[in-house]
Formats: sequence, C-alpha cells, structure tokens
Amino acid sequence: MAFSSRVRVYYEDTDAGGVVYHANYLRFMERCRSDWLVHGGWPVDRVQREFDVVFIVTAIEARYVAPAKLMDVLEVSVEVLEARRVQFRARQTIRRQGELLFDATVSLACVRASTLKPCAIPEPLKHLLSSSKPL
Amino acid sequence: MAFSSRVRVYYEDTDAGGVVYHANYLRFMERCRSDWLVHGGWPVDRVQREFDVVFIVTAIEARYVAPAKLMDVLEVSVEVLEARRVQFRARQTIRRQGELLFDATVSLACVRASTLKPCAIPEPLKHLLSSSKPL
Amino acid sequence: MAFSSRVRVYYEDTDAGGVVYHANYLRFMERCRSDWLVHGGWPVDRVQREFDVVFIVTAIEARYVAPAKLMDVLEVSVEVLEARRVQFRARQTIRRQGELLFDATVSLACVRASTLKPCAIPEPLKHLLSSSKPL
Amino acid sequence: MAFSSRVRVYYEDTDAGGVVYHANYLRFMERCRSDWLVHGGWPVDRVQREFDVVFIVTAIEARYVAPAKLMDVLEVSVEVLEARRVQFRARQTIRRQGELLFDATVSLACVRASTLKPCAIPEPLKHLLSSSKPL
Repeated sequence: MAFSSRVRVYYEDTDAGGVVYHANYLRFMERCRSDWLVHGGWPVDRVQREFDVVFIVTAIEARYVAPAKLMDVLEVSVEVLEARRVQFRARQTIRRQGELLFDATVSLACVRASTLKPCAIPEPLKHLLSSSKPL
Repeated sequence: MAFSSRVRVYYEDTDAGGVVYHANYLRFMERCRSDWLVHGGWPVDRVQREFDVVFIVTAIEARYVAPAKLMDVLEVSVEVLEARRVQFRARQTIRRQGELLFDATVSLACVRASTLKPCAIPEPLKHLLSSSKPL
Repeated sequence: MAFSSRVRVYYEDTDAGGVVYHANYLRFMERCRSDWLVHGGWPVDRVQREFDVVFIVTAIEARYVAPAKLMDVLEVSVEVLEARRVQFRARQTIRRQGELLFDATVSLACVRASTLKPCAIPEPLKHLLSSSKPL
Repeated sequence: MAFSSRVRVYYEDTDAGGVVYHANYLRFMERCRSDWLVHGGWPVDRVQREFDVVFIVTAIEARYVAPAKLMDVLEVSVEVLEARRVQFRARQTIRRQGELLFDATVSLACVRASTLKPCAIPEPLKHLLSSSKPL
C-alpha cells in the first residue's frame, strides 16, 4: 500500500564527494510526501488554505545504505506505519532499480499554520493516511 | 525549437517570503538543461565519462518577472542562441500556465572535468546544440 | 564604501564537479546583504515586522570568473550603485584572498510583505542605502 | 568537551512555513563538524588530500524540538559519543540562546575518497575524536 514517486539526481543534489549530499535525501522524502498528497487530492497548499494546518517533521531515524549518484533515477516511497489524532509516522525508502539506498522512519505532527501549535489531523487527510497504512 | 521540462515547487524551493527563493530558479534552469541532454542521448554523466568534459556556467543575465509559489507546476525551457567552439549561450524561461515568471540568458563553457581548463565542445554535443538553435 | 562579510565553503555548497554549485553564489550574495542590514541595525525580520516590507530580487547580471572550492573562505561584498524610491541596484563581488571569483549586479525592489506589491523604501533604510553608495 | 560553532539563519534556510526547512538542520550539523575539524587542524580538504579519506554519514536519529526562524543565531554543537576503528558516533544539538531546538545522534564512517570503501580512521583524526569524547 505504499505510494512512490521518482526523482532524477541533478548537479544541485550532489556534493564534492561525487555523490548525493546526505541532507538531500530528506528533501527527496518530502517531495514524495507532497506528491502523495497531490495524488490523494490534498496538495499541501490546499490543506493549508482550507484547514490552516501544515505538517511538520518531529523526528527522523535514517539509515544510509548506499550512495546515489549524478543522473540516477530514484524511486522514493512512503507508507504510513501509524496514524494518531495529531501525529503520524511513516516509513520511507529510496531505491535505485530496486536496490535499497536509504531507509527512514519519519514522524510528523499536524499544527496550525499560523501558530505552529499541535491540532487534530483534518478528517479527509485521516482517510488518506489510513488508506496508505499497511495491514 | 526550444526544449522544455516541468518542475513542481516543493517546500524546499520556497523561503519565508512565501515564494520560491530567487537562487532556486537557477537550479530549475540547470535541471532543464540536464533533462535536455538526457533527451538528446547525452546525459551529463555520460558526457563526463566519454569525453572528460563538463559544462560550467560563465555568465547569467536574469529577470524575475513574477514569483512562483508552493505546489506550482512550472514549465522550464532552453533554447540555444549561439554555439561556438568552446562556449554556447542559451535563453531559458520559466512559465506557469503560459505566464512568464522568469527570463534569462545563460552562457556556458566546455571545460576538462579534471583541470577545469576550456576545451572544444565534443562533436556529438555540437550537433545537439545546433538542432536546438532557433532560425 | 562597500560592506563585506565572510563565508566558508562547506560540502553542502559544492557539487559533483568538485567546486561550488553556480546557484550558491546567489545565496552567498544574499547572506552578505542580510549581514549588511544586521550591521546597519535593520535585520530583515525587523524590517518586515516594523514596515511590512521585504526586498525581492528583480534582476541579476553575473559573471563567473574562477571557481571556489571546498573549505575556501570567501569575502563577499555589497556596494549600492543606485537607490531610487522603490528599487536599488548593488554591485556584489566574491573574492578569495583578494582574487576575484564572481562579479554581479543585483537589482532589488521593496514590496509589501503581505501583497508583494511595490512600495517606497522606508526612510531608515534609505539612509542605510545612501551611506553605502560610492561617490 | 563539546565543540560548538554559530550559524545565522538566512532566507535560503527557511521555507514557506516561515521557519527553517527541516533538512537544513543536517546542513548546520555538517557545518559544525567541518568547523570542528578546521579547529583541530584537519580541515576536510586536507584530510582528503593527505589520506584519501572522507567521512560519510551512515545513520541519523533526530528530534525536532522547536522551530528556528529567520535571522536567529544558532549554536550548533558536536560531541563524540563513541569512536571505533572505522566509524564514530556523535551527539549534535542546535540551541538558540540556550533553548534546545534540535537534538541528534549521527553515525559517520571513514571511507576511501576514490572508492567509497570503508577504511580505518587516520591516526591524527583518532586523537581529535578522542579529545572531544565525553567521560
């Protein structure tokens, strides 16, 4: 039940070590989460406009398994592990032609866009989160 | 005869002003140039491997016409204006549903990857540059 | 009458070509402009809070003279060339131990933070701009 | 026995949510690690030149406690928790005027720059790692 999207690695993503700069895997994960919400009919700008909420990352556990390189096409996935009233936790992976490069668990909290205070995840998004939840 | 590709605007591309951070339009342009080379059969990693050359930006003239926003889908174009032995100059635009947001002229030079010294543009790339040249 | 500040080049600033990614020179310029406003007593967050204005880049002309490398310490300068009611134009350079690496002219406009519509540069900032203006 | 360095938050570090983009805390941590090596006499470019090794991040566990904002001055710290033959693990925090914003444990491995294969941490760096180790 995971959602996945693709990213191509450009010069901007790499560093002088010749591989993708480690912080940029977090960007790739966030792109995938955003694409997933677009796919579910709730792009983040609509979520913010209609409910005045945004999701913020509260914790990350990540393992770097193998480096991605310039011009690689990566498959980034997201799968909800647990959804609660205010927070949810997802597993995200990055693969190149099936080979696992990066594996992470990300915790996100729903907050008021204006105050950044925690608040309940809006109903339509709750459904979206549940449908991506593995059995 | 312009080539164009698309980018979606994610949180990473925006800043606290609520719009795309100005330096990131240069990233979007570079992604488009890279996509164009992929489309022409010469992705930058292959170019570097086979000819030991890379292209570096030597000059940019850019006009910011209107801001791009979170979740916008942008069309980025590239069109060669002039191709010489070592350098070429291209016009690149960024549009949102036809509306011009950003307009630039970019000059690039072909250099040895190992030394960064100028060198002649390899033949197969010369053809690619010429085919994208406007009449 | 130029203001200057320093940046160190980290991995995040470089790309697989082994040098600073070209778009990042625009970041370095913006850091220097921000430091200059801090130094003048008007950090951008205070400017926005007190006057509801932000400065946006409207045009850039840049020349890349020589590449910067990992761990270089760069001196970034800003000098106002012309200040008008709504806009100002500055010259910015990036040097490494005196050697010119990058040379640009940047045009900025003062806009309402809430609407992004052009508006007059607030008086205290006008003074700051004038004092940095070359004779 | 922790080393710490400072970063100012610029527009480039923020996103449309008005706060620092979550991936950028990893950049701030890496800047601090680089500054620490400079301070210890072993800037990363010297390490690579003399020993043909680089350090790559292999795992991160991070907790986002409170958001950083535009123009904040942040104190970033690094403290070695454990140093082994090939790998070391460090705790890194980000604070604003003493208030904890971000707390992470980062694992790094020493690898050959040319092959990215694991190798022993060079002796002079072992000493540096040990001296920053808490009792």
